[in-house]
Amino acid sequence: MKRLGAAALRLVMVGFGAVGQSVAKLLIMKEKQLITDFGMRPRVVGIADSRGAVVNEKGLDLEMALKTKYEKGTVAEDKTHELPVELIRRIEADVLIETTPTNFKTGEPGLSHIKASLQAKKSVITTNKGPLARAFHALLELARYNNVHLKFSGAVGAGTPILDFGKVCSRGDRIIGLKGVLNATTNLILTQMEQNNSTFEEALKYAQKERYAEADASLDVEGVDTAVKLVIIVNSLMSQRPTLRDVKIRGIGKVSREDLHNARDRGKGIRLLASADDEFSVSPSEIDRRDPLFVSGPYNAVKFLCEYSGEKVVVGRGAGGMETASSVLRDLLEIRDQLSGRSQT
Amino acid sequence: MKRLGAAALRLVMVGFGAVGQSVAKLLIMKEKQLITDFGMRPRVVGIADSRGAVVNEKGLDLEMALKTKYEKGTVAEDKTHELPVELIRRIEADVLIETTPTNFKTGEPGLSHIKASLQAKKSVITTNKGPLARAFHALLELARYNNVHLKFSGAVGAGTPILDFGKVCSRGDRIIGLKGVLNATTNLILTQMEQNNSTFEEALKYAQKERYAEADASLDVEGVDTAVKLVIIVNSLMSQRPTLRDVKIRGIGKVSREDLHNARDRGKGIRLLASADDEFSVSPSEIDRRDPLFVSGPYNAVKFLCEYSGEKVVVGRGAGGMETASSVLRDLLEIRDQLSGRSQT
Repeated sequence: MKRLGAAALRLVMVGFGAVGQSVAKLLIMKEKQLITDFGMRPRVVGIADSRGAVVNEKGLDLEMALKTKYEKGTVAEDKTHELPVELIRRIEADVLIETTPTNFKTGEPGLSHIKASLQAKKSVITTNKGPLARAFHALLELARYNNVHLKFSGAVGAGTPILDFGKVCSRGDRIIGLKGVLNATTNLILTQMEQNNSTFEEALKYAQKERYAEADASLDVEGVDTAVKLVIIVNSLMSQRPTLRDVKIRGIGKVSREDLHNARDRGKGIRLLASADDEFSVSPSEIDRRDPLFVSGPYNAVKFLCEYSGEKVVVGRGAGGMETASSVLRDLLEIRDQLSGRSQT
Repeated sequence: MKRLGAAALRLVMVGFGAVGQSVAKLLIMKEKQLITDFGMRPRVVGIADSRGAVVNEKGLDLEMALKTKYEKGTVAEDKTHELPVELIRRIEADVLIETTPTNFKTGEPGLSHIKASLQAKKSVITTNKGPLARAFHALLELARYNNVHLKFSGAVGAGTPILDFGKVCSRGDRIIGLKGVLNATTNLILTQMEQNNSTFEEALKYAQKERYAEADASLDVEGVDTAVKLVIIVNSLMSQRPTLRDVKIRGIGKVSREDLHNARDRGKGIRLLASADDEFSVSPSEIDRRDPLFVSGPYNAVKFLCEYSGEKVVVGRGAGGMETASSVLRDLLEIRDQLSGRSQT
């Protein structure tokens, strides 16, 4: 475990919403620890949001960037005409942190950002599921071809290291199946309906008020978000290569309070479960209340079935800007190790 | 992800009980996959048990070694006068796999085996908690000084990658506390007492019959095994450096069926919990039945409290020869990566 000199790592951030801002805050809070414990001195040289960009190749003042965003609604100090894709291509940087909103249909604008970055031989950390759902293997291939890294720990499980945990489990063993609660919003809704006797609409409103659900929560409720995460996990950790079309999807729209109460009376609970074995599916399913997958509130839980060592479960919060930002930082530390030849996986 | 030529890795195994034999079986079963997927061609050049040893520098026939052990109760084909420590020093090998029985008082004979191996610049994988409880930092220091590796994933959690999971969690974040069920035997006993209304003695007998408890289960029952694992986890993952003496220990000896039933009636359960925050303790504790730590049967569960990303829980079987062997293999793959300069942590 050699300690190398603190390496400057130049970052460009595209997307500066809850996750992007939390990454900036985390970089500020952990600046000293990153140098002393990990020998890393990250420098954000550019930030773009949907309304403009700010650039400083010597390193931006992140406190100032957060203040500007807070006061003006954009990080840009004046109107920039440069598109994020152009910024990504032009700027001297090592890693793109892509946190723009997810679009499952087209993957855009994240898909173009990620492609441009990999082609320009800049590594990418993304929390954006859209591009991964659209082009998982193509993007990984592009990264390999250009000899850079593509990391996406925060795309699944927010701060809970589901993919990293699965990677650890699969060394010296093999993951042959999995089941999981992968969407914090629907889990919060089901929990509210059962515990507080809320209607679906009341529970959804609560989730929106608590900022777990978007104004348009249909992708969560219909199970698409869960299915996309399932596709990402399976492609990352198992030998199959499903796409979204291979997943049978049923959302929680038809689950009633009565269903939940009936299940409870029998010692069961209903959760929106993703499942991978011979088939891939997402559907509301009854599970035992003692099953570790029976989590309540905005949590995620995944059970991996391993060939030699049996079942292993990971549980943690499945949402939150700061939680997701901690995954970005984990990815960044891994890229830093790999760039300095200290690690491989 | 370069694929290197399959590297021969010479192993010497000391201890050939349930775990050692499972390691041998796993090496046989996974021989091809280790070459194709991981570029590793392990070769066991020596095996010692308490009654003798067998050596072949070209690589032992593991099927034959297992057969001899099964038929004769020892792996030795004839009486060997060489002590394991002498064998470890003399034999040309890269890694010692140390799986002798745990002795918490002296750490022996494992402690001497591990020291001899590290001093002879051979890396060590151990599942033996005794030496780690006795000399955690001294052994790590010795490994560093000799520029070799000391791995012990299987010493905590059998096949459940508790230490590796914690290591992942602590990157980009910091573990500031933990609680956990770390002893499968006592968890099975408490489960039996509650669910089957068994007496403590009946439950213990059941655990012994199912081979989860040793003939002398006092170290499990009194909480010492749990405390040792707590010490190993904290020293590995947190900034504190407690020894066994710093842990307040209370076992499950005084937990009655009535206590368990009373707790159940209030929606609670009693588990032998290890806890680390400002203090270190092991004691039977009431927890909510919906808490992910409320596992039943021979399971382990650990909840890490992280500074930025909140609580994360890992759950899995906490016992079993094959489960523990899968952890040994995981350690072996990591050492193989490090020897070939592919990884760092």
